[in-house]
Parts: sequence; C-alpha cells; structure tokens
Amino acid sequence: MNNKKPVTVNKVNHFETFVNTHPLRNYVIIHQTDEFTSVCPITGRPDFGTIIISYIPGKICVELKSLKYYLQSFRNEGIFYENVTNRILDDLAGLLQPKWMEVKGIFSKRGGLFSTVIASHGRKPGK
Amino acid sequence: MNNKKPVTVNKVNHFETFVNTHPLRNYVIIHQTDEFTSVCPITGRPDFGTIIISYIPGKICVELKSLKYYLQSFRNEGIFYENVTNRILDDLAGLLQPKWMEVKGIFSKRGGLFSTVIASHGRKPGK
Amino acid sequence: MNNKKPVTVNKVNHFETFVNTHPLRNYVIIHQTDEFTSVCPITGRPDFGTIIISYIPGKICVELKSLKYYLQSFRNEGIFYENVTNRILDDLAGLLQPKWMEVKGIFSKRGGLFSTVIASHGRKPGK
Amino acid sequence: MNNKKPVTVNKVNHFETFVNTHPLRNYVIIHQTDEFTSVCPITGRPDFGTIIISYIPGKICVELKSLKYYLQSFRNEGIFYENVTNRILDDLAGLLQPKWMEVKGIFSKRGGLFSTVIASHGRKPGK
Amino acid sequence: MNNKKPVTVNKVNHFETFVNTHPLRNYVIIHQTDEFTSVCPITGRPDFGTIIISYIPGKICVELKSLKYYLQSFRNEGIFYENVTNRILDDLAGLLQPKWMEVKGIFSKRGGLFSTVIASHGRKPGK
Amino acid sequence: MNNKKPVTVNKVNHFETFVNTHPLRNYVIIHQTDEFTSVCPITGRPDFGTIIISYIPGKICVELKSLKYYLQSFRNEGIFYENVTNRILDDLAGLLQPKWMEVKGIFSKRGGLFSTVIASHGRKPGK
Amino acid sequence: MNNKKPVTVNKVNHFETFVNTHPLRNYVIIHQTDEFTSVCPITGRPDFGTIIISYIPGKICVELKSLKYYLQSFRNEGIFYENVTNRILDDLAGLLQPKWMEVKGIFSKRGGLFSTVIASHGRKPGK
Amino acid sequence: MNNKKPVTVNKVNHFETFVNTHPLRNYVIIHQTDEFTSVCPITGRPDFGTIIISYIPGKICVELKSLKYYLQSFRNEGIFYENVTNRILDDLAGLLQPKWMEVKGIFSKRGGLFSTVIASHGRKPGK
Amino acid sequence: MNNKKPVTVNKVNHFETFVNTHPLRNYVIIHQTDEFTSVCPITGRPDFGTIIISYIPGKICVELKSLKYYLQSFRNEGIFYENVTNRILDDLAGLLQPKWMEVKGIFSKRGGLFSTVIASHGRKPGK
Amino acid sequence: MNNKKPVTVNKVNHFETFVNTHPLRNYVIIHQTDEFTSVCPITGRPDFGTIIISYIPGKICVELKSLKYYLQSFRNEGIFYENVTNRILDDLAGLLQPKWMEVKGIFSKRGGLFSTVIASHGRKPGK
Repeated sequence: MNNKKPVTVNKVNHFETFVNTHPLRNYVIIHQTDEFTSVCPITGRPDFGTIIISYIPGKICVELKSLKYYLQSFRNEGIFYENVTNRILDDLAGLLQPKWMEVKGIFSKRGGLFSTVIASHGRKPGK
Repeated sequence: MNNKKPVTVNKVNHFETFVNTHPLRNYVIIHQTDEFTSVCPITGRPDFGTIIISYIPGKICVELKSLKYYLQSFRNEGIFYENVTNRILDDLAGLLQPKWMEVKGIFSKRGGLFSTVIASHGRKPGK
Repeated sequence: MNNKKPVTVNKVNHFETFVNTHPLRNYVIIHQTDEFTSVCPITGRPDFGTIIISYIPGKICVELKSLKYYLQSFRNEGIFYENVTNRILDDLAGLLQPKWMEVKGIFSKRGGLFSTVIASHGRKPGK
Repeated sequence: MNNKKPVTVNKVNHFETFVNTHPLRNYVIIHQTDEFTSVCPITGRPDFGTIIISYIPGKICVELKSLKYYLQSFRNEGIFYENVTNRILDDLAGLLQPKWMEVKGIFSKRGGLFSTVIASHGRKPGK
Repeated sequence: MNNKKPVTVNKVNHFETFVNTHPLRNYVIIHQTDEFTSVCPITGRPDFGTIIISYIPGKICVELKSLKYYLQSFRNEGIFYENVTNRILDDLAGLLQPKWMEVKGIFSKRGGLFSTVIASHGRKPGK
Repeated sequence: MNNKKPVTVNKVNHFETFVNTHPLRNYVIIHQTDEFTSVCPITGRPDFGTIIISYIPGKICVELKSLKYYLQSFRNEGIFYENVTNRILDDLAGLLQPKWMEVKGIFSKRGGLFSTVIASHGRKPGK
Repeated sequence: MNNKKPVTVNKVNHFETFVNTHPLRNYVIIHQTDEFTSVCPITGRPDFGTIIISYIPGKICVELKSLKYYLQSFRNEGIFYENVTNRILDDLAGLLQPKWMEVKGIFSKRGGLFSTVIASHGRKPGK
Repeated sequence: MNNKKPVTVNKVNHFETFVNTHPLRNYVIIHQTDEFTSVCPITGRPDFGTIIISYIPGKICVELKSLKYYLQSFRNEGIFYENVTNRILDDLAGLLQPKWMEVKGIFSKRGGLFSTVIASHGRKPGK
Repeated sequence: MNNKKPVTVNKVNHFETFVNTHPLRNYVIIHQTDEFTSVCPITGRPDFGTIIISYIPGKICVELKSLKYYLQSFRNEGIFYENVTNRILDDLAGLLQPKWMEVKGIFSKRGGLFSTVIASHGRKPGK
Repeated sequence: MNNKKPVTVNKVNHFETFVNTHPLRNYVIIHQTDEFTSVCPITGRPDFGTIIISYIPGKICVELKSLKYYLQSFRNEGIFYENVTNRILDDLAGLLQPKWMEVKGIFSKRGGLFSTVIASHGRKPGK
C-alpha cells in the first residue's frame, strides 16, 4: 500500500556557488530553514531546530539548492547543538570567504529547555 | 570533533499500553507533535509536519513514550501524506479499539502548497 | 543570604464553598490556571500544565482561594496526565454537585509531544 | 488508583560540563526554560517564571541535563526573585568562568505585578 | 502641582434608552469594555476585568453613555465575580426586556487563577 | 445579596524596602502592572494604563507588596498622565536612591488617542 | 504647498451590479472594509469601524467599486451604530434580493466601550 | 547581468490523479496556497489571494504537483473573484467526483475592500 | 429615521497648551491615533492611517483634546502622505518649541503598497 | 463566461517623480508591498515576496503609482533573488539620487528555505 523507498542521504561538504554580481556593495543575504533535524549523539533520538545563515558575500554566493542538500545531510548524523552551529559556520565560511557571516541555531525544547547558539565569522561592516 | 553515532530507527508497529482507569467516562485524550518527519517517496527528500491524535479511550490507552517511538519511526520511510495519516489511524485504532479516534496531519509547504489530511474512526459520542 | 523556609504543601481534598445566589439560572463559571505542576510518577521529574475548570453551579460554588490551594497541592505528587484530570473532576463534581462540569488539562511538551485531556460530568443544558 | 512516588529533589550546586570545542571564537549559547518554579519565602506559596541564561563560553560549557536538574532543584526552596536570579548567575559563572554571562528571570504576575530581574557578569565582547 | 478633584461616583441603576428602530428584526448588539474594575469584598483590593454584553433588542436599546456610567459605578463597590455578572444581567434585562441577553465577565488573574462568568436571559432565536 | 464593603484607599507615599544583597553588581529590576487606574482631573472619569518601573538598585530595593499598595492608591485621585508618570519617578527615586530608574506609563485610548509618557532619573550604566 | 481639492462625497443609494454566473449554487460572497467612517449625530465627531457584508447571491451580485463608493458615502453623515448597520442591510438586500445576507459592524472604542451590531436578512441555507 | 527566460505558462485543465487507497473512509484532504495570483479583467492589473481546497475523495485524489501547475496557470488570466472560485470548484469536482468539495478564495485588499468567496459541491457527510 | 447633522470640521492650526511641570527633565510624551483620515488630492478618495507624535517637551505641552481636534481637521482635506507628516511636525514643533519631536505616519494599503513617512525636529538627547 | 484580457506588462525603467517639498529635512519614506512576484530563471516557476524600499529623499521623490507599475513589471521576468533586490536599488537610487536608500527583499519559502536580501546605497545620516 505504501510507496517505500530506501533513503540514503550522505553527508555533503561541497556546495554549488555562483559569482557575486555586486562584489563592491556590502549587502546582506539571509537563508533560513525551520526544517533542520539531526540526531542527539547520546540518546540517538531526533533533534529539531531552525537554522539562520546571514552573510555579506565576497566574490561568490552559495547556490540555494546545494545549501538545502547540505543542511538536509545532517538528518541522520549524531551531533551536539554547539557543534552543529559552529560546523555550519566553518564549512560555509571556509568555502565562501564572506566579508562577514553569522550562523544562528534555535533548537526545539528538550527536557524543558530551549537552546540557541549564535556564532559569527569576521566583523560586520558599519558595526 | 563530532560525537557521531549510527542511527538505526526501525519501523515500530507495537505500542505499550496501560489500562484506562475511567472506562465508563467518555473523556478525550489528545497527543500532538510538531516534530513529525518522513520522506517523500518520489523525490527522496524530507517532509515535515504536525500530527494530532485525539481519541476517547475504550479499555486501554497508549503509553506516551512508545507513541513517540512509533511516530519517530517514520523518519526515514518514504510515504505520502494521505497514506501516513490513514496508516497512523489504522495502527492506533486497531490496537486501542477506542470509542472514537481522529488523526490530523498538517504538513509543511511544498511547491507553494500546504496540505492537511483528517481521518477518523467511529462516531464521536454526543455529535 | 537566602530566606529559606521549609515548604510542606499537603494534599487537600476539601474545599471552601459558598451558596449559589442564582440557583435557578444555568450560568457558567470558568476557573483557569497556567501554574499547574505535578510530578511524573515514573521519572520523578516535574510536569507543567494549564487546568481549565468550567461548570454550571447547582446549590453551591467553590471558593477561589481553597480551589487554588487544592490545585497547588498536586505540586509534589506523582500522578499521570489522565489521572490528574479525571481526579480533579471527581473531587470537584463530588463536592459541588454541579448541573454540568468539564475539566481540561493542557500539559507541556514531553519527548516532543503535547498532551491534552478533557473530561466532563453531566450534560451541558442547551446542547 | 494513582501511581504515587515520594519526590525528594535536593538542591544541586555542581554541574556536568564539557570542553568548549571552539574556545577562540566568541559565540553565544542561550538556554531558556519556561518551567521554573520556586516558593515565596514569605507566604510559602509557589512562584513561577522563565529563566534565560546567555553566555560566551570560556574553556568549558555546561551540560544540558545537569543544568535542568540544577534549575529544577529550586522547586521547593523559598527564595526571592532578586536572589534567585543573582544566585543562578553566581553559581554558573563561578563554575564556568565564561567570557560573559547574563541571567534573566521573568516572573509571573503576583498581586497584579509582573517582575523581571536581569543580572550579568563580565563585559559582552563587541559592546 | 497636581490638579486633584474629589471623585464621587455613585451607584447608578437607571439607564438612558432609545427606541429600537428595527423591532421586527432579530439583530444582535454587543457592547464590550476592557476597563471594568470593582473591589474584592473580602480583601478590599481592586479587581479588574472585561465585560461583554450581547443582546437582541425588544422595543428599546440602552444608550451608550449611560451604560458606560453604569459600568463605571462598580468602581468602588465590593462585589464578587459571580454576583457582578448576574447583577449586570438582572439590571439590564429588567430594564430593556430584550428578546435575548448574555453577559460575560472575564476577570484578571488572582492567586494564579483567571475566572470567567457567563450568564444569559431568554433563548437566542435560531439556536 | 452583595457583600458590600466601604473602600477607603488613602494615598501612600512611604514604601517598605529591603537591603540590596548585590550592591556592587549593576543589575536591573523591572516591575510592571497592567492594572493601573486613576481619575481624569477634568472630567472626573476613570483612566486606565500600564505602568513599567525599571531600576538598578543602590543600597535598597522596594518591597513588592508596598509598591502594589502605592500604585493602587492613585485609584481615586485626579491626576494627568504627565504628572502621574513623573510623580511615581519622583517618589520612588527619592526613596530608593537608585543608580538609574525609568518609569513608563502607557495609557488607554481616550478620544481616539493613546498616550505614553517615559521619564528617567540618572544615567543607565554602560549606555 | 499642499494640493488641496474640495471633497464632495454625496450619499449614494444605487449600486452597479452584475449577473450571477452560478445562480443555482448557494455560494457565499464576503466583502470587508476596515476603512469605514461616519460621524456621531450627537457630538459631530468622527466614528470608525469595520463593516463585513456576507451574502448568498440570487440573480445579481454587487459590483466592488460601486460598493466601495456607497460605503465611503457615509463619511460625513451623522448616523448611530445601530442605524448604519441596519441601513446597509436594507439598502443592499433591497437591491440584490439575495438568498441570505448578513451585515456586521464592528465599531472602534468610544468612552471605553467597543460596540458591534450584527443584522441579517433571510435564512442561511443549510442552517 | 540577469538570467532572463521567457515565461509561457499556459492554462491547464487536466490534472494528474492517483487512486484513493481508503475509498470507504470519509476523510478530508485540504490543499492551501497563499501564492495565488491572477489579473483583474477590467484594469489588467494583478490580483493576489489565498485558495483553500477541501474535499472528501471518492475513487481518486488529485496529485499535488499537477494541482500546483493548474493553480499557477491563472497567473496571466483575466478573471473575476467570483468566477475564479467557482471555476476551480467546477474543474476539480468535475474531474475528481469527490463525495464533497469546498473551494475558498480569500483575495487581497483592493480599494479598501477584502473579498472572500466560498463555494461547495455535494453535502459534507455528518453535517 | 436617521439623526443627520451637517458636519463642518474646519482646519485647525491653533492648539491648547499647558505648562510643563518638569521642564528640567528630558522625558518623552507619545500620542498615537489609529483613526487618522484625509483625502487623496488626486483621486478625491479617502486615505487612512496611524499618526504617532513623540516629543520631549520644552516649556509647554499640547493639550490632548485640542490635538485630537487638530488631527480630525484633516478629514476632508486633500493632502499627500509626505506633506501631511511634515506639516503636522511643522505645526506642532512651531507651537511647542520642543527639545525634540518626531512624527510618524503609517498609511493604509493603496494599490498594493503601504507607505510610512518619518520626520523629526531637533536631536534626541542622549543619542 | 470569463472576461479574459491578454496581459502585456512590459518592463518599466522610468518613474514619475515629484519635487521634495522639505529638501533640507532628513526624513524617511518607506514603501512596502507584499504582492511582489517574479519568475525563477532556472525553473520558470513563480516566486513571491515582500519588497521594502526605505529612503531619505534628495531633491525628488518617487510617485506611488509609477513605483507600483515598476514593481509589477517583474511579474513575468526571470530573475534571481540577489539580482532583483540589487537591481531595484540600482534603478531607484540612480533616478532619485537619495541621501540614503535601502531595499529589502523577503522571499517566500522554496525547498524549505526562506531567503532575505538587504542592500543599501549611501550612509544613513545620524548612524
């Protein structure tokens, strides 16, 4: 009765990029997903959250679809809140070499506690 | 740097139950999760949604933790919206033999469209 | 530095009441608290919730302060969601002999699941 | 009919910690609970509130489960709003030696008045 | 420095009325104030609430300004929630002889409890 | 039928205070009531509003219950919006000698206009 | 400096209409404006409100632009809340001969009171 | 600098369908888009709205992607609010032969007026 | 049947004022109305909006009732959004000679566009 | 049955303008539409979003109707999010020569991701 299909989402560390058409202008791009999920490395149970990535592009921008696949690739990976936020920042900043980048992870309630982690790279111009 | 742990969440079709302590009273129990996720059987990409299960118990009630594990077991299964809602109803109503049960699945936006599926079993007393 | 004081909140099963001044009119009284807390009988950890008590009084009404003390007396008691809702209904309906009463317990998220229990006594006039 | 279990939640002053994997980056961690409860030292009646703990970790971070147990251990303790906020800051900052920490307590309405207390330790970098 | 003026708001039991221009049509008029205040007869301390008056007029309607003065006249009167709702219904229904009337009082939090009282007179046509 | 009780709320200018247990830390205390009411000195009709008092305590803090009684004592006093906000600031700052204090009065709609008055004493540290 | 233009909005009692393309189907059309304004006939001061017109069309429907002009034509007319709601119903139902029509007027706060008037014509099919 | 691409979205009147796996159960499927746009046939300017399609399937269900393409095909078509709602109902009910179907169109503000059109086909079971 | 009354609201350029009782303190007064309406000088059709006036008074303050009459006097005047905001600022700042003043006009949707205009006079102290 | 009309919205690069009546005052004008739509240059499918344009005018301001036509002219154009935001800024800033301008594009969810782009021209006075 069901259309079952084995799912094998492998961890993705490379992204598609495109050339920034306004490299001289310090403008901000924000991508947000409220469909982030990973797995608690201790209990093996799923975690859910919202990831907000903000950056001022340098020479290149990340392509939206490959960013989606990258974020989905954490689905079956066991990783702590602090690590996942810092790792997304490391992966994206390493690739894009942005003028400034911030990653914010807002994770759903566990044991009566909400957790948020905010990490940034570089200095936001004009601040 | 990461604490990775292979995740093997197998499909669960049996639940823990406990005896209804007020079997003569037609009272309503509602369990709701906004952390439901499965996989689109066509694209292999994740779907997200809210599942709301309401019922008037007969002789037994479903235990909360086993219900959580059952709902989490759809995580890596490819299944359509219509099917997942009807199947949760079939699985739970088959087990619990409730006086009345309704399952409502509210799924997140895909291609600009939100979808909701509402299926029920039996007739709600007093309606 | 702290003003500590040992707290001994004992379980209360009796209420103060006052005479209903309009016994011939079927009017509805609703009391709601979002400060309900009890203890999970399995884990020993605190649960939180909202309790909404609605009734059409018969000859007597429950006095507000004694209702507050009654609801606070569950603070350190281990009791399941289904039981606490039915027990508040049993205790209050047994005392007040209302024409109709409903107790609704809306409990906070545990393991990714919200639970609500709705139990009623008698038939609401005009329905 | 109820599964009662005596609850003895003792005051906890020690926490589990884990090593900060990004000690050179000034990132912010926020933990928030809306399930905080303590007891008014004057009336002996329960108080409720939301506690928000924000910090930039130094060499160590607080582990989530032990933080939950620490916050729950105020459940039956008589303590004023001002004290509870400052004490959580003292306990956590003393242990974690963070680069910056802020504790915000938002307490529920008493006598028609809402109260909020905000205390911080160290200077937030970049402010 | 202040412009002080002694305030003597006396209890008002008479209202201005005007003739219903559409006596054959069963239409509904609703008046709502979120500025209702009276005094707790036990503690002598102020209570606050919202009063919603709905009715299908017979031959006459209540004039808005005199209704405002009537509702303000409870300001320094000691009266319980149940009584104030029923009394407003008695006073207005006695005067206006409406085809149907309902008075709903939603009172602010006291001791952690919200209270609402709903009383009606006559039967709403079409129900 | 009513339990009436003459109410005589006299203007209060003295407060209970308690010693600040953390005088060296610049932490903020906020007290807010949405149950403030006074009387328009021109029309003699009631005004309603929200009062928010924020301060960094010096050597003493204001006790919550006496603050409530002070704010309730404006109930039957004729006073303009500008005056009431400045007077609460004068009374409290004169007594408490805080490092910084702000009083904000948000008053309900009169003649289609909402009014807000914000007055402060001292300079907020770090601004 | 201003482009002033004398405004003469005369009372409009005729509407443009168009033929109902689905006269055999009982479907509902709802038009709502939150930009309704008229004048209080006692004080000469402006009143504001929201008008919601719902109907099941018979042979004809009202054209949107002429409905807008009709509703704007109350701008400088002195008329009470009860009258304006009933008159819009009389004018529109007289013209359109709908199977069912309801007019709801929700008026802004005056003297601390919100008023709503709901009038209907005919019986809604299926109720 | 721009990647322009001529867009030719033709009107679509055929849909993909799939077999209803639970034809004996009267369950409800709801599809909603807040990205509906068409063109005003008088002014030639764009209209925007939300379309909500609810139905109890008979033997077949509409496939989501083809429904999306169908709804997008109104993008450059000149059509009135009343017509578009009735036509979607005619097109879908004609194809799917559902047990019951309702189409609701909620259109954005034009000339200060919001319009909603609700049309249904068949009788909802249990009503 | 209607109580009609010709309305002649003439443009008002003078205000009642009262002496600032705290001229040495830089406190802020905010007046806000969501009942502002004027006329489009091109189409002759009504515009609606919210006006928010904030200022730090010098020697005098504007009296509330005369401010209301001034704002109502734009009701039948043809004036653009940019002009009306700047003109209110010119009129009020010219009269009151405040230490700082800001006027914000938030206008309702026209042709699918919301417009806001923010103009200020003087420099806000402490900024 | 439908009034169809071929729609040919051509790309508009010229705007109507009017002279700034307060060129010496640095005031802010904001125009916002939640009815922006363009086409994805890769898939040819429609995108939707909100565009917010804020500026401090120099010698001229943009006329509202021509701005509306300009924004509507993207309806059938294939263009990426980053490009559309920067291009609106280029077009408007090039024409108006404002003292400062910011364009913010908030685009609807695609593939589970929301995107926002914020670009500005010049430096906001007082920042």
